[in-house]
Amino acid sequence: MEAIKSYIEQNQEKFLNELFDFLKIPSVSADSAYQADVQKAADWLVSRFGELNMDRVEVYPTEGHPIVYAEKIIDDNRPTILVYGHYDVQPPDPIELWDSPPFEPVVKDGKIYARGACDDKGQAYMHLKAIEVLNQGGELPCNVKFIVEGEEEIGSDHLEEFVRKYKDMLSADIILVSDTSMIANDVPSITVGLRGLSYVEVEVTGPNRDLHSGVYGGAIDNPINILCEMIASLKDPETGKITVEGFYDKVEELSAEYREEMGRRPFDRAAYLADLDMADTGGEKGYSELERASIRPTLDVNGIWGGYIGEGAKTVLPSKAFAKISMRLVPHQVSDEITDLFVKHFQKIAPSSVKVEVRPHHGGEAAVVSTETPGYKAAAKAMETSFGKTPIPTREGGSIPIVALFQEVLGLDTVLMGFGLDSDAIHSPNEHYGVFNYLKGIETIPLFHKNFAELAK
Amino acid sequence: MEAIKSYIEQNQEKFLNELFDFLKIPSVSADSAYQADVQKAADWLVSRFGELNMDRVEVYPTEGHPIVYAEKIIDDNRPTILVYGHYDVQPPDPIELWDSPPFEPVVKDGKIYARGACDDKGQAYMHLKAIEVLNQGGELPCNVKFIVEGEEEIGSDHLEEFVRKYKDMLSADIILVSDTSMIANDVPSITVGLRGLSYVEVEVTGPNRDLHSGVYGGAIDNPINILCEMIASLKDPETGKITVEGFYDKVEELSAEYREEMGRRPFDRAAYLADLDMADTGGEKGYSELERASIRPTLDVNGIWGGYIGEGAKTVLPSKAFAKISMRLVPHQVSDEITDLFVKHFQKIAPSSVKVEVRPHHGGEAAVVSTETPGYKAAAKAMETSFGKTPIPTREGGSIPIVALFQEVLGLDTVLMGFGLDSDAIHSPNEHYGVFNYLKGIETIPLFHKNFAELAK
Repeated sequence: MEAIKSYIEQNQEKFLNELFDFLKIPSVSADSAYQADVQKAADWLVSRFGELNMDRVEVYPTEGHPIVYAEKIIDDNRPTILVYGHYDVQPPDPIELWDSPPFEPVVKDGKIYARGACDDKGQAYMHLKAIEVLNQGGELPCNVKFIVEGEEEIGSDHLEEFVRKYKDMLSADIILVSDTSMIANDVPSITVGLRGLSYVEVEVTGPNRDLHSGVYGGAIDNPINILCEMIASLKDPETGKITVEGFYDKVEELSAEYREEMGRRPFDRAAYLADLDMADTGGEKGYSELERASIRPTLDVNGIWGGYIGEGAKTVLPSKAFAKISMRLVPHQVSDEITDLFVKHFQKIAPSSVKVEVRPHHGGEAAVVSTETPGYKAAAKAMETSFGKTPIPTREGGSIPIVALFQEVLGLDTVLMGFGLDSDAIHSPNEHYGVFNYLKGIETIPLFHKNFAELAK
Repeated sequence: MEAIKSYIEQNQEKFLNELFDFLKIPSVSADSAYQADVQKAADWLVSRFGELNMDRVEVYPTEGHPIVYAEKIIDDNRPTILVYGHYDVQPPDPIELWDSPPFEPVVKDGKIYARGACDDKGQAYMHLKAIEVLNQGGELPCNVKFIVEGEEEIGSDHLEEFVRKYKDMLSADIILVSDTSMIANDVPSITVGLRGLSYVEVEVTGPNRDLHSGVYGGAIDNPINILCEMIASLKDPETGKITVEGFYDKVEELSAEYREEMGRRPFDRAAYLADLDMADTGGEKGYSELERASIRPTLDVNGIWGGYIGEGAKTVLPSKAFAKISMRLVPHQVSDEITDLFVKHFQKIAPSSVKVEVRPHHGGEAAVVSTETPGYKAAAKAMETSFGKTPIPTREGGSIPIVALFQEVLGLDTVLMGFGLDSDAIHSPNEHYGVFNYLKGIETIPLFHKNFAELAK
């Protein structure tokens, strides 16, 4: 324990510089303009793994972005930890809102500012450094395997094929992932629940060309107005419930006990609103903010566009309007089923004056992980040691579809031991990750390896 | 008459080539990137006026784009015609939908394809060529003055100041404008009614930064969803009426007789829908398509944007959403009053979870012109001669705010003798103007000058 701490202290500058090199590569998976950079990030990881004397380091190309695989097998009798992470990042826009360039990492007030600093380059790279730490003590306590993919931010479209194809190579006893957050730096927590996702793009077409709003305005329906009306109708104005038929059919209703226990999680509503500079929250009636953001499904428009959006005024009655709409799902809701329900519903509510097309993007299943597994216990004990506090099991609002995938294909539980904070602004301008959190992760992960070696015997 | 016709025949290639030079200048007033081109278009006009031996040709700079003025005074005892036109054009986007580049004019099937071909470069330039035609016959029948502005497509923001400042210089007996359309090439018409305009840009702000839709989704209101709900609420789903309080208070209710006469205007609904490739029209209940597009007010979203609109999927809960919204107004509705009503209403319907800002763009008043004036009669007689048919007086859906401005400041009626067609795709990709219409205008306008010299005595 002391050896780990002192090694980290002596090497923290090196650890930070290595992460900075990683963050400088703009590996934006959603935008094909960055394709070469995504490849570059994969190659960079290969070199870093090379320095950790793994038995095997390989890049597996996919039809999308490549998957980096690495492994070190000490002894077939020891338990095996399969670490998952991703090296791709969200697009940086709106880029003008960044205080410093998204791909030129800087440390301010003890925080690393850069796209991917927390999600997930910073958190994924902790696991490589944890191996470096363990290497100092000689043999690794467990066998270790790594999958670091480049398509998490666009739905891990080619991961399932890879996992199915290399099922045997990936055999392990537990999946370990750091891609979630804790309640606070002095309130460690482990995520035991995640929401699923259904994501669609809709296109509403009115007239076959843009028209003059004076000549045609009033006579025909405007596809932007229609799209707004259709989107507005997706939520009940009274209850805030989503109106898509069948949407709630499989939603898990949680016990009063669970909701009460969950309610004990510290939540300062005033501070929450102040941080967002909002006067009020909003959403489904009858549930708290924490509940609405974790155990309840949602429907959010992630993007909308149509007509003239340039400088000045243009009196156009546009031909088309578009929106990107995503739904966060809770356990038992099935992503593909919800997507189908949405497509049917959206087609059904379209007036006869427009044509509607709905293009499904990626989806993912919700997941709940048990606190009774050796994996969870090893993580809880590790955090207890490094933070000096027993972590709280929490449900998160985000989605990590691979948890359900690993459960189904590899039959493995996943431990979601994340070190980020909800305030890290992931997916937003000025994403950041605490230097404390980065180093604390590098300190805690080796303890997990040691504990798991004991508990999984 | 025959002299005019033969001169036009001999010079039609020259007339077309000159217009092409004009159309090649991308004088897009809405986008500051084209500022130099707008100036270039003004300078080009000055040279053309120079060739018509006017007494005076001047460019008046404004805080926006310049105004070109020209005049030829033959005799103070003769009536004076003040011709108005504009040399600025709408932005060409969506540029990918043009079959040929918007600023490289081409003639296909007897039509000139280019941005501004009809609105208003083609129609404005006819008036210069009409002077050239009249010059052949020696003296002009009337004194003539020209105002050609460069901000019509962005609301003529600086024209009013100019007109008030140079009230005396602009003294005349009639305003003549070709910036409207006829029913068909074999159904000439003269516009006697125009709609006004109120145009605003709205900004809805939710959280102070873009957020992760998993971490925050469900807990807080999404500004895009809210904007859609607010826009949807602006129209009554049953009646299609606009819900802004007081919006209809001053709307002119037309007599059954007038509506019946208007109903006689040929309208082929099936052809109308087929041309737009739409299965149905939509709008205010109880009014026909022609009525909804001319004598009734409207509310159209001209543009909307917010969140992630790039390639792929981004699970962002955005900070802001925007829309450009315009309302077409009918006689007696006052643009500024309607804008105020909209601002108040939009602020009022905003939920406490968001901040709303409404920025008024330009507006303009509706207008109705009498068929009993010498000006109207001179135009009707001119068209009767050149087309061989008496033109029908019509109400149009578009807006030419300057008509009300000239009435108020100069106390002058405006004759709206346009030669375009509703199918010319003005403000749209592949805008075009018939060679027939261009030459027919050059043939008809000199007749107007002659007729007006008689009738205005």
